[in-house]
Amino acid sequence: MARSAGADGRQRAVIESVAPIVDRGRFPIKRCAGDIITVEADAFADGHDQLRCVLLHRRRGDRTWNEVEMAPLGNDRWRGHFTAPEVGVCEYTIATWVDHYLSWRHDLQRWSAPEDIAVALAVGAQIIAAAAARAKGVDGKRLGAWAKELAGAAPVDVRRERALDAELDEIIARYPDRSLEIIYQPALAVTVDPPRARFSAWYEMFPRASAGPRHGTFRDCEARLAYVAELGFDVLYFPPIHPIGVTRRKGPNNATTSRPGDPGSPWAIGAKEGGHKAIAPELGTTEDFRRLVRTARSRGIEIALDIAFQCSPDHPYVSEHPEWFRHRPDGSVQYAENPPKKYQDIYPFNFETPAWRELWEELKSIFDHWIGEGVRIFRVDNPHTKPFAMWEWMIGEIKNAHPDVIFLSEAFTRPRIMHRLAKLGFTQSYTYFTWRNTKAELTEYFTELSRSWSREYFRPNAWPNTPDILHAYLQGGGRPAFMARLTLAATLAANYGIYGPTFELMEHEPREAGSEEYLNSEKYEIRNWNLDRADSLRDFIARVNRIRRANPALHADWRLAFHRTDNDQIICYSKSTPDLSNVILVVVNLDPVYRQSGWVDLTLEELGVAAGHAYPAHDLLTDSRFTWHGSRNYVELDPQRVPAHILHITPGHP
Amino acid sequence: MARSAGADGRQRAVIESVAPIVDRGRFPIKRCAGDIITVEADAFADGHDQLRCVLLHRRRGDRTWNEVEMAPLGNDRWRGHFTAPEVGVCEYTIATWVDHYLSWRHDLQRWSAPEDIAVALAVGAQIIAAAAARAKGVDGKRLGAWAKELAGAAPVDVRRERALDAELDEIIARYPDRSLEIIYQPALAVTVDPPRARFSAWYEMFPRASAGPRHGTFRDCEARLAYVAELGFDVLYFPPIHPIGVTRRKGPNNATTSRPGDPGSPWAIGAKEGGHKAIAPELGTTEDFRRLVRTARSRGIEIALDIAFQCSPDHPYVSEHPEWFRHRPDGSVQYAENPPKKYQDIYPFNFETPAWRELWEELKSIFDHWIGEGVRIFRVDNPHTKPFAMWEWMIGEIKNAHPDVIFLSEAFTRPRIMHRLAKLGFTQSYTYFTWRNTKAELTEYFTELSRSWSREYFRPNAWPNTPDILHAYLQGGGRPAFMARLTLAATLAANYGIYGPTFELMEHEPREAGSEEYLNSEKYEIRNWNLDRADSLRDFIARVNRIRRANPALHADWRLAFHRTDNDQIICYSKSTPDLSNVILVVVNLDPVYRQSGWVDLTLEELGVAAGHAYPAHDLLTDSRFTWHGSRNYVELDPQRVPAHILHITPGHP
Repeated sequence: MARSAGADGRQRAVIESVAPIVDRGRFPIKRCAGDIITVEADAFADGHDQLRCVLLHRRRGDRTWNEVEMAPLGNDRWRGHFTAPEVGVCEYTIATWVDHYLSWRHDLQRWSAPEDIAVALAVGAQIIAAAAARAKGVDGKRLGAWAKELAGAAPVDVRRERALDAELDEIIARYPDRSLEIIYQPALAVTVDPPRARFSAWYEMFPRASAGPRHGTFRDCEARLAYVAELGFDVLYFPPIHPIGVTRRKGPNNATTSRPGDPGSPWAIGAKEGGHKAIAPELGTTEDFRRLVRTARSRGIEIALDIAFQCSPDHPYVSEHPEWFRHRPDGSVQYAENPPKKYQDIYPFNFETPAWRELWEELKSIFDHWIGEGVRIFRVDNPHTKPFAMWEWMIGEIKNAHPDVIFLSEAFTRPRIMHRLAKLGFTQSYTYFTWRNTKAELTEYFTELSRSWSREYFRPNAWPNTPDILHAYLQGGGRPAFMARLTLAATLAANYGIYGPTFELMEHEPREAGSEEYLNSEKYEIRNWNLDRADSLRDFIARVNRIRRANPALHADWRLAFHRTDNDQIICYSKSTPDLSNVILVVVNLDPVYRQSGWVDLTLEELGVAAGHAYPAHDLLTDSRFTWHGSRNYVELDPQRVPAHILHITPGHP
Repeated sequence: MARSAGADGRQRAVIESVAPIVDRGRFPIKRCAGDIITVEADAFADGHDQLRCVLLHRRRGDRTWNEVEMAPLGNDRWRGHFTAPEVGVCEYTIATWVDHYLSWRHDLQRWSAPEDIAVALAVGAQIIAAAAARAKGVDGKRLGAWAKELAGAAPVDVRRERALDAELDEIIARYPDRSLEIIYQPALAVTVDPPRARFSAWYEMFPRASAGPRHGTFRDCEARLAYVAELGFDVLYFPPIHPIGVTRRKGPNNATTSRPGDPGSPWAIGAKEGGHKAIAPELGTTEDFRRLVRTARSRGIEIALDIAFQCSPDHPYVSEHPEWFRHRPDGSVQYAENPPKKYQDIYPFNFETPAWRELWEELKSIFDHWIGEGVRIFRVDNPHTKPFAMWEWMIGEIKNAHPDVIFLSEAFTRPRIMHRLAKLGFTQSYTYFTWRNTKAELTEYFTELSRSWSREYFRPNAWPNTPDILHAYLQGGGRPAFMARLTLAATLAANYGIYGPTFELMEHEPREAGSEEYLNSEKYEIRNWNLDRADSLRDFIARVNRIRRANPALHADWRLAFHRTDNDQIICYSKSTPDLSNVILVVVNLDPVYRQSGWVDLTLEELGVAAGHAYPAHDLLTDSRFTWHGSRNYVELDPQRVPAHILHITPGHP
């Protein structure tokens, strides 16, 4: 609230409509280290007096504020900027006050009759003398002398000129009377994340599938790093790596019974070998894992772990902490169910347990454990089935101690819940991209993600496939569909990921017609992949990721703009840096079967192109070079060759 | 904030995006007694459990809440309603909780295997037994029996049927387990005003001009009431009625010197006869005023006073409270100035005085005085030059004691300031209507006023003229311009007013070319009006006000809708009651010179008309009757006759 009940009635200024802000300051905004943060607000007072307005900012915990003068934008709106320091939390707010010196100076310039000017000079002498008393030191002496001069005997026009001297203005601005200032409260928070929070390329793989047909290990994963690096990914993300339960273990294709030797689902966490802090013995040792994390980091790749707060019936928690689970009337532990479906191999936690505090602490300690092992990125499985308050507390505590940790929220669920999870602390969020396939769907959804106020807290991460979702478009669209979806994910969203090697090998058979489950899913068996298959998309993916890295326009989401086309199968959009020094224009043929052509109608301001001008458009995918003219240009894309252009636009150099 | 820091971690529900709300509850919304208030919110919990959501409401000061069940709208949005009781303040908020009974019932309907149903029935028996314990009495006994039955030995399908009995559902709904409920905080406030706050027609006149050429009195005003009633106005509003200063009194046309006998400006308040609580002796006595207020009320007319917090140099405050004024270096009191303009006959208060508390109390006592004399409506002059915090306090205190008082804010100033004044308590607000004359301007401005969220606190009052503003359109447009502007004000805004008799007598000469000041303004001299002039608009105005009273569609602003026309001089809009039982369609020719014609393209849903149907359109201004067809209809309006249609549409009766 901008003023408290017991405030001094002479505090005449008001601050309203501060931006950016999330739920009036209930939640922080998100930025990355080094970002320039622009803050705006309405600030005004009754009457015609002049205001000054300063932006206050500091790292959380600092005792003093840094101050930046805000500039009036007209219509009582003000704007200022500051730079997000290193990762952590910083705070900002706004102070404003009626500035009688400025009001006086403004009026003095408008008086013309000598008697009016004389009175104004006498008033000004008082104002400047008061500033002199606040200033002290050299500035105090200079201001004192100025006040005397204004009250002196020199001719009115001489004194007026002295009063309007720019130097006086500059000195006195440092000693305002802020005794009646208003400070917007409460101060607002910024979660400052590492740059990878905004720009990252994820590669998901089952570590046990790194050496098919045999069970792969962390050593095999280490050998796979070269491949992941070649493809250009900087996050290598593993499904759960913990011991897998044997009780009611699932068999291939989610069969309710397993055969000896079936590896089971990694999400059935916990066995006699341990729970969420243990490593499945067949993957290797703790030391193997640590070495993998180190080696990956030396290649610029972070290892991300999937954290799934649920237990197999064999998890040590089940016997050690029965109070953390719900029990059925017959005394057995309640397994997961979603009538008429039953998941007897999974025990969910009962978050309404009276022992919720101990449960929360234990679950937090799982993150702490893996942070201790060097992990800095976590993908959280089904966060929407755990209490919001727990996430807010847990992520807050963890980021207090380790502000560089990144949490990706897996929540393909109701939009309000996805947004709540993002607000309360998740660094990145899964999106509906997987199910947005038409031009209209993609345009509407990514316009919302990149332009609405939710961008202050919701950082999208776009996935064309996951172990749970093989969309019909990929099932039926063949190679062009995979190329188009990869291009869309990688250029619409600065954070994106694929689940491989199924993706680059274009795995596309569903378990059954109408299903989004993979046939012979890796969730239940170990597959044997031939990464060197001639038709693999590895080179295409590597090229797209190289383009991403080389072009800063693709490192952020806010400057995404869609451009009209006259063909519903052709989507066109651009991204650019704020200074337009890097401009990328993407055109994708969404039809995986037929060649499509049409005219695109560019919004030239988004590209920095002048109307009617010619400019080079360099296709970074095929290395073709075109000359485009003004806003209207012709495109033609053959899905059997490359279904997309990623054009680098150089507006200044025709 | 929806949850506090020390909350129980098992409280899993969340409430967000409550509407209506102003600045997250910092300010109340406004309604009138008897209004149905619709409240919506997002409410959800983690996971798939079912929620219940209730709307809580009470009069401020009551200890217990009234509860209304909210209905789910889908997508985690909920809605409920309550009726604003009598004038005063009421409060509302929302409570929600995870309802395990509802979740259980939902699941039970989806199980099909007998063993699953059996387990569910056993769980249900526990849930119902717990409800029985909460219920006690007859309901407790019945629920207890039900629980036993579910846990009994009857066949599963028989017990399942009993479990899903609608009667059980109805009884148990009264005894939910709300131990982990969330209540949205803080509760939100509604200022409930009298109906005249939303629907009123104001007539402003100088009481001293009620008997020209001599100085009129309150007795003369009493005689004028019949005329005001005939015209159909229900608020008769006077400029300040206090003793007028003699020092530096202004002469006719704002001359800096006055001649003996010049009456001076009523806004130069205060003389030896008294200040803001006194009546200018030439207007009459306190008893005369009281009688006028009573007589007016008996005719359905409220007397409104203009309250202007400023003083003439002769005001008793100036000598009694020099500390309430600013002083110049020579010791003289600072008069009002806006360089290079000077207003030496007006002393503004210095609201930065250390004695601000005493000043606020004294100014409040002015309202209290006139409330004591029977006045319930105040128009406040230049509220934007007095502290916002003072208005919030003063209006709050006054409405606490007298919730039926109406404050109209005169603030033709920066939009942020107009809105702030409305938020902090002014019942109605002047608008930019006076300067919105084209179809595009009117459409944009009234769409904003009637459809944007500001309507929750900003009630417009539209004036085609005031003593300070004679717009160029009226100066040059003749009779058609006055008729068009009257029609627009009276039908676009449920609250409107005119300054008469200048308006109905079509006074249109400016003091000088380019000025919006009246020539020979009543602000400085007493005019002599002939109300019986043959060309007076009194009959036209009376007819428009009769139409307003007879048609509930015109009693509110929120259901204003503009309809497309193919002629920029023809504006078309409708208003309707929410149930479409009263529908008014207005068409105005904005060109005061030429006959204009064109096609209007109606949005039929706004009118309740089915596409392609014929329906009667009765012009209430001319009593003409038309048959209109579907959405597209032809109109032609001759400004030399009547420049507008006010059509009563009867969609159901072709």
